[in-house]
Amino acid sequence: MTKLISPFKILARDENSKARTGILYTKHGMVRTPVFMPVATQACVKALTEEDLNYVGAECLLSNTYHLYLRPGTEALKKLGGLHNFMRWNKSILTDSGGFQVHSLSHLRKITEDGIWFKSHHDGSKHFFSPESVIESEAAIGSDIWTCLDVLMPNSAHKADLRRALATTKLWAERAAAHYKKIVPEQNIQQNEDGSFSVGHSILFGIIQGSIYPDLREEAAKHMARQDVHGFCIGGLSVGETLQEMNTAVEATIPHLPEGKPRYLMGLGTPIEILECIERGVDMFDCVWPTRVARNGQAMTSEGKVNIKNNAHRLSEEPLDKNCDCWVCKRYTRAYLSHLYRAGELTSHRLISIHNIRFLIKTMERVRAAILDGTFRQLKKEIIEKYK
Amino acid sequence: MTKLISPFKILARDENSKARTGILYTKHGMVRTPVFMPVATQACVKALTEEDLNYVGAECLLSNTYHLYLRPGTEALKKLGGLHNFMRWNKSILTDSGGFQVHSLSHLRKITEDGIWFKSHHDGSKHFFSPESVIESEAAIGSDIWTCLDVLMPNSAHKADLRRALATTKLWAERAAAHYKKIVPEQNIQQNEDGSFSVGHSILFGIIQGSIYPDLREEAAKHMARQDVHGFCIGGLSVGETLQEMNTAVEATIPHLPEGKPRYLMGLGTPIEILECIERGVDMFDCVWPTRVARNGQAMTSEGKVNIKNNAHRLSEEPLDKNCDCWVCKRYTRAYLSHLYRAGELTSHRLISIHNIRFLIKTMERVRAAILDGTFRQLKKEIIEKYK
Repeated sequence: MTKLISPFKILARDENSKARTGILYTKHGMVRTPVFMPVATQACVKALTEEDLNYVGAECLLSNTYHLYLRPGTEALKKLGGLHNFMRWNKSILTDSGGFQVHSLSHLRKITEDGIWFKSHHDGSKHFFSPESVIESEAAIGSDIWTCLDVLMPNSAHKADLRRALATTKLWAERAAAHYKKIVPEQNIQQNEDGSFSVGHSILFGIIQGSIYPDLREEAAKHMARQDVHGFCIGGLSVGETLQEMNTAVEATIPHLPEGKPRYLMGLGTPIEILECIERGVDMFDCVWPTRVARNGQAMTSEGKVNIKNNAHRLSEEPLDKNCDCWVCKRYTRAYLSHLYRAGELTSHRLISIHNIRFLIKTMERVRAAILDGTFRQLKKEIIEKYK
Repeated sequence: MTKLISPFKILARDENSKARTGILYTKHGMVRTPVFMPVATQACVKALTEEDLNYVGAECLLSNTYHLYLRPGTEALKKLGGLHNFMRWNKSILTDSGGFQVHSLSHLRKITEDGIWFKSHHDGSKHFFSPESVIESEAAIGSDIWTCLDVLMPNSAHKADLRRALATTKLWAERAAAHYKKIVPEQNIQQNEDGSFSVGHSILFGIIQGSIYPDLREEAAKHMARQDVHGFCIGGLSVGETLQEMNTAVEATIPHLPEGKPRYLMGLGTPIEILECIERGVDMFDCVWPTRVARNGQAMTSEGKVNIKNNAHRLSEEPLDKNCDCWVCKRYTRAYLSHLYRAGELTSHRLISIHNIRFLIKTMERVRAAILDGTFRQLKKEIIEKYK
């Protein structure tokens, strides 16, 4: 097994499931888990500012190496003092490796053993990502949590192709971890007497692939468990598989990972998906869903989904969610939000996004408290009841 | 002349021009003039919230009777406690009468002596505005400053048609003022010992038309000066005429208006236009320009216009305006704003709009101070130099 210390402190475990709550320490502070990370795809969470994100209690954002590499460019970001300084965010940032975006956005990608050739979705210009170059890009971005370049295949691919892709992903993770060691000074993580950690540099997460096949997931997890990484991403899910398939893939992965490192399931999700994964031992989540549906007039509330376009809200003096503590719910009526949406006002995107992210982050706060006091199962049941 | 008291206190007059500074009192507080009023067309200043508007120092918003009448509907607004409660804005609101929107947006309008038939630009449904019904709509909206229904004609119209339109506008102003008296309790304005006013109800402004013809403007101004209104709108400008034509129309209007009532030039504008009008005795302004150009990446700064799309800003660590006190300028670089704009992020619209409105409101603050200390001409020259 790896000798690398992970700056992750587990505070409590749920007795009836694999759920746990803890703190991941980064060079920008603490990330309490389970955590929901809003997605700042292009150095910005859509319609919001970092002031809004501080307000809703975000502790870690996700940003995209692929997008930032193309625009404003990693060299530009380096000159401008890194992503934190660029967007004025002073808490943690995780960057994904670009593997997913190269898969989903780029035309004519070509995977070799060395890396991936791809064409920019902006202008068709040709680019190359290698496991090492992605680490260099993440270093230029200055994110707190880096991820290794991986190969993503659609779940519908032949198993032989998935196996081949996994072999490449494994090889690339080894190369990324080796490159990380080259550029990051040793002993940049120190454990303090109280169990907390002082973290002097960015940390590295490996990405576990394997599609919906338990045997591939197990193989990938066992391999990644042996690598010098500080945490694990579970990739290749939330791409159209059923909830059952996702659960099976997670169950085939988690038992093979060391307890003491955080696990992040990429691209989730809805309250139900997140709670199912927390129960199975996942600690970290990100998703564009709460901001994307917000721009379509959909809110997540303590009573379930609310579609602000619904005529029933046109004269409603109720807040979006009477149990929510966010200023949008404290200040505005459904009637006003409904009007703004109908009138095509951009302000409606911002207001519903603030609420939706606050809702998910507050749900995580409740989950953490429930794990601490032994009521996670009960809370999970209560929330899922509203989102069935 | 009218016996109506206008709740307007003039604090100082410029010695070298007709510029003056004062306070217009409304039932929601003070509006210090010269004032720039951001435009909340549909109960929302585009991309902003009322928190942003308080932040930039807005004291009065403009909203549109035509738009609010169609959506959410004036009956709905009445049920929801009026526009202030609906949008959570607790300072002043002026509503225009809808005359301009019926002219510019509606299909197949038909003007009779009674009022205007028009078709909604949303769904083609047929509606009727009369001088009385517009006052009723404004009462339902609950705005602080109401305006009379007018007839707007393009400047290119035959003078005979403009004269006919003006005759109708004059007649309608009389009917609006009469209807206002019917529904508003008398003596709702009291002057206090210190010269300030206590205002218990919405007040009424008449709209002066007359296109770019000095003789028509004079006729319209003299007529409106005799009406029981608390202030004057100068309408029909900022619709494509030259700066010289606008100045001439204003010069033909102002001398025929009583000193003690505020004058509002509808739909201006750019810093140059506003300063030219202040010099000629105008007190109030509104325009969608600062928010519209913001959404196109254009900022107004103390050094003149800045187009954030310009490549020169891509790596610039300068703020949008180094002399601006707004939080956008204190927090973000041009590089970041430029990136957000290129990336198509909605956040860029909000951030540049906040700056642009703050810039205009701060310019008005400087104008008021300059009128008080006798340096208005100098300030005007200095600002216009940057915007030639």
